[in-house]
Amino acid sequence: MVRKYRIGNPIETDSVVTAIELENGPIPYFEKVEDKNELSFHMGKTDRVYGLAETVRGINKRGYIYTSNCSDDPIHTEDKRSLYAAQNFFVLWGKDKGFGMYVDTPGQVSFDIGYTDMDIFSLCFEDFDADIYVIEGDGLKDIVKQFRKIIGKSYIPPRWGFGFGQSRWSYMNEGEVREVVDSYEKQGIPIDSIYLDIDYMERYKDFTISKERFPDFKNFVKEMADKGIHLVPIIDAGVKIEEGYDIYEEGIKGGYFCKKEDNENLVAAVWPGKVHFPDFLNEEARRWFGEKYKILLDYGIDGFWNDMNEPAIFYTEDHLKEVFLQLKDYEGKNLDIRSFFNMQGIVGGLANNPDDYKRFYHEYKGKRYRHDKVHNLFGYNMTRAAGEAFERLSPDKRILMFSRSSYIGMHRYGGVWCGDNKSWWSHLLLNIQQMPALNMCGFLYSGADVGGFGADVTEDLLMRWTEFGIFTPLFRNHSAEGTRRQELYRFSDTESFKNIVNLRYSFIPYLYSEFMKAVNSDGMLFTPPAFEYPDDDMAYEVEDQLFVGDSIMIAPVYRQNATGRYVYLPEEMKLCRFRSYDDYDVEIIDRGHHYISAALNEVLVFIRKGHAFPIAAPATRTEKIDYASLKYECFDCNSEAYDLFIDDGISR
Amino acid sequence: MVRKYRIGNPIETDSVVTAIELENGPIPYFEKVEDKNELSFHMGKTDRVYGLAETVRGINKRGYIYTSNCSDDPIHTEDKRSLYAAQNFFVLWGKDKGFGMYVDTPGQVSFDIGYTDMDIFSLCFEDFDADIYVIEGDGLKDIVKQFRKIIGKSYIPPRWGFGFGQSRWSYMNEGEVREVVDSYEKQGIPIDSIYLDIDYMERYKDFTISKERFPDFKNFVKEMADKGIHLVPIIDAGVKIEEGYDIYEEGIKGGYFCKKEDNENLVAAVWPGKVHFPDFLNEEARRWFGEKYKILLDYGIDGFWNDMNEPAIFYTEDHLKEVFLQLKDYEGKNLDIRSFFNMQGIVGGLANNPDDYKRFYHEYKGKRYRHDKVHNLFGYNMTRAAGEAFERLSPDKRILMFSRSSYIGMHRYGGVWCGDNKSWWSHLLLNIQQMPALNMCGFLYSGADVGGFGADVTEDLLMRWTEFGIFTPLFRNHSAEGTRRQELYRFSDTESFKNIVNLRYSFIPYLYSEFMKAVNSDGMLFTPPAFEYPDDDMAYEVEDQLFVGDSIMIAPVYRQNATGRYVYLPEEMKLCRFRSYDDYDVEIIDRGHHYISAALNEVLVFIRKGHAFPIAAPATRTEKIDYASLKYECFDCNSEAYDLFIDDGISR
Repeated sequence: MVRKYRIGNPIETDSVVTAIELENGPIPYFEKVEDKNELSFHMGKTDRVYGLAETVRGINKRGYIYTSNCSDDPIHTEDKRSLYAAQNFFVLWGKDKGFGMYVDTPGQVSFDIGYTDMDIFSLCFEDFDADIYVIEGDGLKDIVKQFRKIIGKSYIPPRWGFGFGQSRWSYMNEGEVREVVDSYEKQGIPIDSIYLDIDYMERYKDFTISKERFPDFKNFVKEMADKGIHLVPIIDAGVKIEEGYDIYEEGIKGGYFCKKEDNENLVAAVWPGKVHFPDFLNEEARRWFGEKYKILLDYGIDGFWNDMNEPAIFYTEDHLKEVFLQLKDYEGKNLDIRSFFNMQGIVGGLANNPDDYKRFYHEYKGKRYRHDKVHNLFGYNMTRAAGEAFERLSPDKRILMFSRSSYIGMHRYGGVWCGDNKSWWSHLLLNIQQMPALNMCGFLYSGADVGGFGADVTEDLLMRWTEFGIFTPLFRNHSAEGTRRQELYRFSDTESFKNIVNLRYSFIPYLYSEFMKAVNSDGMLFTPPAFEYPDDDMAYEVEDQLFVGDSIMIAPVYRQNATGRYVYLPEEMKLCRFRSYDDYDVEIIDRGHHYISAALNEVLVFIRKGHAFPIAAPATRTEKIDYASLKYECFDCNSEAYDLFIDDGISR
Repeated sequence: MVRKYRIGNPIETDSVVTAIELENGPIPYFEKVEDKNELSFHMGKTDRVYGLAETVRGINKRGYIYTSNCSDDPIHTEDKRSLYAAQNFFVLWGKDKGFGMYVDTPGQVSFDIGYTDMDIFSLCFEDFDADIYVIEGDGLKDIVKQFRKIIGKSYIPPRWGFGFGQSRWSYMNEGEVREVVDSYEKQGIPIDSIYLDIDYMERYKDFTISKERFPDFKNFVKEMADKGIHLVPIIDAGVKIEEGYDIYEEGIKGGYFCKKEDNENLVAAVWPGKVHFPDFLNEEARRWFGEKYKILLDYGIDGFWNDMNEPAIFYTEDHLKEVFLQLKDYEGKNLDIRSFFNMQGIVGGLANNPDDYKRFYHEYKGKRYRHDKVHNLFGYNMTRAAGEAFERLSPDKRILMFSRSSYIGMHRYGGVWCGDNKSWWSHLLLNIQQMPALNMCGFLYSGADVGGFGADVTEDLLMRWTEFGIFTPLFRNHSAEGTRRQELYRFSDTESFKNIVNLRYSFIPYLYSEFMKAVNSDGMLFTPPAFEYPDDDMAYEVEDQLFVGDSIMIAPVYRQNATGRYVYLPEEMKLCRFRSYDDYDVEIIDRGHHYISAALNEVLVFIRKGHAFPIAAPATRTEKIDYASLKYECFDCNSEAYDLFIDDGISR
């Protein structure tokens, strides 16, 4: 049962698509804290909290404070309160009772889940305005399902979006892209897509192609398509200020850009240098910007990633002027140390400065809002611009789309990736732990940069991460300029990388089926053990194993130099220890605790009793998978136990 | 057997105290890489590498690259190659064979242990000059012992240095310190010392006391001493430039400060603003600076921590001038984004800039050396200054001393703490994993800031960390200005904190005995399971359990919300699950894998077969521990199996 309550006068977000009548009584569970914009709930000792999607720390969110405030912060250490997204849905569950809650507000809200006081869950609002949905139901999965039902069906990518993708900031020209594809082909490692980061553009201008680097882009897209390779370009939120650049000029003419209080367009700086931000919250601007994707669709492009849409701001013109003025005060002085740190802080604080979010406005649903009041809706509405446009521009064919920033509601228009993570073992674990929480909030098409974006990867980290990545719908290897090259063929054991990526393609019939069933039933693809075995106390303790769809559980290895790991089985299962499609051990493992060996090139898949797991012969591209080749690994059943989802993988 | 080899013309470090004749032949195991300052060794698949003391990542160092380059970097994420110390001893071990190696050079050397190529261990030298000691022996512990023998006996603190200490940057005046002590007394939590961070000084001037904040310091030291509380002030490496400040003036007069190429004293800025650095490598300067500790000894102080001695440099005067000149080029321009990042980098790069280490020189053993060539000896020699002075100033009584920066050799003069860590669960694990490696390099008196220095702690993290901290010789709770207050009495379950710190005092007779035995036998206090059970393959996999002395193994919980953990027992052991001195379960546990419950307030101690574990009644101060009150938990033996070390705890 979903009940809706209202605090104050909230700004609509369009995240909930089902009309629900407002309740009159007090919000259940939580109590208002006197003299504060705060609601408070006393947690039981064994209450766990799940959800909040893209946040740091474990599956159980208890013990920290998380703030919904979409942030371009590439250092995802465990003390960070905000990452790129604002996904305000959680379920509090105490084994046999609990509730779900969706806090619908585009402003800042903090979830203090036993941080200040171990037993108190506080919701702290910057502005005391929100729609609050309270959901009760028959267990964790049921509560999630009810929530998902009110926010609408999750985005469905084309099936090729389940193929392996290679990315790097930056592939500088078509020659480099060709070389990457050739190298994968040479090694026999399957691949479906190459991502184009910012350098494909002319001076980082959205919807342009650098003629110098990609002299005949249309032909190049076709050349790649003929090889079965999809090129997936990045689109950034800022539009470069440049006379003669049609999109800039149209934006000016149409009044589509975000304005300051004085009605001048805000001048911010991002990759292209100075930019204006389209006002994605303004329906007209959204329609205008969405239509621009047609420029790339017409080149034959059929997938995109939206980036820098928190929005990231390296500096604003006004703030930079202020900083240079302030710096004059420091020059030539005998700086004491606090003054010196202030000076460093002034310069270091230019990027993503919260005060810059108070310098500009949106026209939203007929009203004017200062950006910080609707901040968390920006990336969402950028991706909505694309998604709404694709419905018009590509009514029959699905387009690949995922975004860095998001808010609930955006899950109907695209997926997400988890932003600029690092080549850290702890971020492989974070990737594992974020997946079910993303699913809870409707983001089914999701994944993190496999191998890590920042910092230098090692071969073993990349291999272990790839072994997990083969289970995430978005399966992309991506790395930052200046870091160690991270394409799989650059390491010594390419044979194992090939075998592991081959497994991905062998598993796509299963993964795609389970994904589509999750979309169609408002279910989750990834569930923590406690969601499947709510009566098993130990299942609540497990934070590093996931169920993927109905048939299997995975237990990825995420520690360097480990040749195995502890696994808890809530019931007897059949372990397949895969080295490749046709080289794997099978073993029945009892319920309970086990130390399971897993050599560096081995992938552990546990099949549930009474379930079947279809496995296709390896294929070099998703669309080359031979569904007739399927074999089934079954535990106490036969292949008929499995309900394969089949469609053409592309029609809407 | 220890053999000594020489590459090039190394600068002496005084780390090895035993005369060993130089071998003539080639260095064993490693081969010179052509045209590079590099030695290379091909590792076997199961070779592990232990040592390197204060570095990131696990107990087995394989799979990353570590650079010995003492660095003031407070963000100890797993991609960092350098922390505060340079401790170049490691053992490579492949279950039944291997070798130890000590790479003695004060310059930069990188240990690429399967980072570039998973099977290659490369030693990469900035300058190809080093003494290399190759050690072979009968297993891991024997190799360590042989190494320790040649570097001399480890520093021994006064026994009260095993008591609990409370610290925070910053306690601003005597009233605050008094309040902290009173609060601990009020809660009945034992405590032996309060650390004074930089604010006790007058304008951050070494060996001064702020008259405003501590109007009668001598009396205050006595007041605390009467309560059994030791005050432990910080000493920073830089001496403030201030006319009339005697230490500054003496340093100028004596020519004790580090000079630039033009023979002017280097002007750097640290907490006091502009400072000169004493040339600790210069014997005369070292003697002069060491003598200054007498000023505080005369106040009744009997312990110190040396800080900022990498040395940390916030900026140098010369570099700051250059930066302000460079900034003029950016002002008023339409900065493209790369220029903007350059500008930010110029300002952000002022602190701890490697080029600043090329701006000044040392007089060392009769020669002049540019700082960067002897960089890793700076903190070592600051602490040596103190240690050598204490031998003169306090010939009978031990003085507490530990340092942030270090090099092997410094272990004879003081301990170390692991620098500015964070309130991260991953840093609790890092603390566990660094302890045995520190021991290998001779640093027996060591520990990390319990609860974490930077970032905001939570009560559960602090409790779990305290449960581990009670086993580390240095047991200090320390936190940074601006972070959440971290004194144990500020949280809700002070009863459990009291019980846990009480356990520390109950365990001191054991810990001090085992520490002294380790010092006297050149042994380790903390050993990883593989060191104790070299024939057990599984023991090599375990990275989160430690043996502490001869009788016990510990298995700390380091995951948020966990109510237990996996433990591997290489043999049958007796588990004591302590909630307090007199409230604990006892259970015999079989060899093998177990999931062991450990509630938030429970400490797991595993007693080895045939070993006894002495436990004292709780005491409020170390020196109040009643050795007559000892009871023994024994497994298959009686209390006579234990060899208690008893001395007066203070005589040298």
